[in-house]
Amino acid sequence: MAGAVNIPEKLASFTDQWAPRIVARYNDHEVRLVKVEGEFIWHQHDDTDELFLVLDGTLDIEMRDRTVTLQAGELFVVPRGTEHRPAARNGEAKLLLIDPKDMPNTGDEATATKAVEI
Amino acid sequence: MAGAVNIPEKLASFTDQWAPRIVARYNDHEVRLVKVEGEFIWHQHDDTDELFLVLDGTLDIEMRDRTVTLQAGELFVVPRGTEHRPAARNGEAKLLLIDPKDMPNTGDEATATKAVEI
Repeated sequence: MAGAVNIPEKLASFTDQWAPRIVARYNDHEVRLVKVEGEFIWHQHDDTDELFLVLDGTLDIEMRDRTVTLQAGELFVVPRGTEHRPAARNGEAKLLLIDPKDMPNTGDEATATKAVEI
Repeated sequence: MAGAVNIPEKLASFTDQWAPRIVARYNDHEVRLVKVEGEFIWHQHDDTDELFLVLDGTLDIEMRDRTVTLQAGELFVVPRGTEHRPAARNGEAKLLLIDPKDMPNTGDEATATKAVEI
């Protein structure tokens, strides 16, 4: 990870959905790329915010009291402790996430898909 | 900052260069947008990494032993304690940065341009 990270090239290198890839590390956080389609599960991260940047497609971030819809070029930070359900209802969406190192994507180690480095 | 942050709209809302805008906050960090052209100064951040994502244009991140050149869609993390000089030598570049809250952009409060929230 010593050089420039080309996001389109990294995205082109995998096809599976809901399986985050780590493309950079920053202050004990991971910069992750993920492809998503359909609904994820409701979950929360008690100890951390979560940053979503939509690179392609449309993502709904449903929270219990409202939904924030993101298009490509839009970002949103889900505050820590906020229950949320990401959902891509109009085809695949490509996302950049920032999460703490080793944070389970579901908020729970037992159900998480572990992010792998690429 | 409660809703979606539209990066192109935020970028269109200011024109001055080397003057970072805060568009979101994430775990005691700030997501900053900045327009740059020409050379910045050599500096370092002893206590933090710094994430650069190029949104438009080309950015050289010069370090004492090498230069990483970023195009739009590319990111790089300057490790903490690494002297660096960002330079946009082919016209204006538009960047997304992630830095700790209140971190001076020059590494030194005396010379920094304070990031302001938009």
